[in-house]
Amino acid sequence: MKDVQFINNFINNFEVFLFNCDGVIWNGNTAIHKASEVINFLKSIKKQLYFITNDCSKSRFAFINKFKEFGININESEIICSSFLAAIYLKQKKFNKTAYIIGEKGLLEEFDKMNIKYIYIETDNNNEMNKKDILNIHNNIGAVVVGFDRNISYNKIEYARIALENPQCMLIVTNRDAKTYLTESQYLAGTGSMIGAVEGCTNRTATLVGKPSNFLLNLININPEKCLIVGDKLDIDILFANTNNIPSCLVLSGATILNDLELFPREKLPTFFARSIADFIHNIQK
Amino acid sequence: MKDVQFINNFINNFEVFLFNCDGVIWNGNTAIHKASEVINFLKSIKKQLYFITNDCSKSRFAFINKFKEFGININESEIICSSFLAAIYLKQKKFNKTAYIIGEKGLLEEFDKMNIKYIYIETDNNNEMNKKDILNIHNNIGAVVVGFDRNISYNKIEYARIALENPQCMLIVTNRDAKTYLTESQYLAGTGSMIGAVEGCTNRTATLVGKPSNFLLNLININPEKCLIVGDKLDIDILFANTNNIPSCLVLSGATILNDLELFPREKLPTFFARSIADFIHNIQK
Repeated sequence: MKDVQFINNFINNFEVFLFNCDGVIWNGNTAIHKASEVINFLKSIKKQLYFITNDCSKSRFAFINKFKEFGININESEIICSSFLAAIYLKQKKFNKTAYIIGEKGLLEEFDKMNIKYIYIETDNNNEMNKKDILNIHNNIGAVVVGFDRNISYNKIEYARIALENPQCMLIVTNRDAKTYLTESQYLAGTGSMIGAVEGCTNRTATLVGKPSNFLLNLININPEKCLIVGDKLDIDILFANTNNIPSCLVLSGATILNDLELFPREKLPTFFARSIADFIHNIQK
Repeated sequence: MKDVQFINNFINNFEVFLFNCDGVIWNGNTAIHKASEVINFLKSIKKQLYFITNDCSKSRFAFINKFKEFGININESEIICSSFLAAIYLKQKKFNKTAYIIGEKGLLEEFDKMNIKYIYIETDNNNEMNKKDILNIHNNIGAVVVGFDRNISYNKIEYARIALENPQCMLIVTNRDAKTYLTESQYLAGTGSMIGAVEGCTNRTATLVGKPSNFLLNLININPEKCLIVGDKLDIDILFANTNNIPSCLVLSGATILNDLELFPREKLPTFFARSIADFIHNIQK
């Protein structure tokens, strides 16, 4: 995307930009080169922006602070993280029982904010969950909510299994990302592991609220044709775009390398490519 | 199966009996009523018996002792457990690298017995696996072997993921049982959880060596028509029998209750039913 006229037309063509965060705005704790310039430029020309992430380890509030550290000021309504999506999903279902959470801080904070009752044990190294807890789960849990959890353990999985013996108990997953980026230099096993463990002992299939499900599109009022999804993952972001008939731009600053594209069927490819979002303002004439 | 003539014909019809163990011979640490009588009777009339279990927490040697406690004397060649199957699978592939094991004692003992090198960490609570281990995994691991593991953890999963970045590295699973019976009174999350976690972060599909795969059938020389598979699980034992055109008998002394049968498609049902293997000698005339 080097041609100035092309970039101008490209940007002008869209009113709404849905950005993935990891691999697009940052890698772990390092901002992508020129990310703040691009975002601030798009804001200055009145584009509507959403930052949509499957990272459920943080709440919207925590994400605002992360953006601030990178020189980007956004407000809560511009962030759609999968921890928020899990909470709002239950709220929409008028959920009034207790949720059992396998996850991290982001889920707890969003559940607290929406006054959804939950049971959560950070680690069970010290057998913090005893028989009484198990019985409580069996009787009162209306939803098992699974997100990224570095403290996943056999007991955590087993308690989910017990709760899900009740066919009325919902099983919700924030995302199915195989990998997650905790630092710039290394990606690690993602939420795909936690939900794989729970589904593997229950023969249940979880309801997905993050990308590539379209649950979040019902929360924001957009015209798909005037919208661009910018992401770094073919199987999450670009699939999300394609299944919802939204134009997409794959950036090569994250999980996908050029070689990956060669293996991908043509109909599953993105509409546009860019090395990174820095290309969005390369030589641009305002 | 109450009719004496029917039972006589039923038993006489078969030369080889493949028994599942959990739910058929015992539940957890309690023998099924009359199990030893049935097995000893079948032995007395010169039937060939195999005890085939997806339980990989024990080696063949440990199973022999468990049978002994229940008054049943069998020898090693009559036991086919999934820990043994995993080791023999690698042996057949002339595997000469190091395996990374997620599992328990049974796998380690069978791997030791067949002189297969492996890396194994019982728990990683104390960060027993450090960066050096991770690098070792990356460079030398030729197979990730997954079985039932009560100490499953994020690090264990992550190290499997790192090893599996190498497309030449095999992924082998002993079984995919959703549930396992550790005690008579309670079943718990099974190996389906451990392999679900690894597959969920790698987008790989493991090679299954236990039931319902037919890998073990190549190890024993049987005539399928003269063979009866006796099991308690529709989705494991009976599926195993049906896909290999082997007659089957479902016993209701384990994981399956009569209600489950009503939900099952007719073509996936077993050939015979019995309340338990005690029916095999009910009023029988030798």
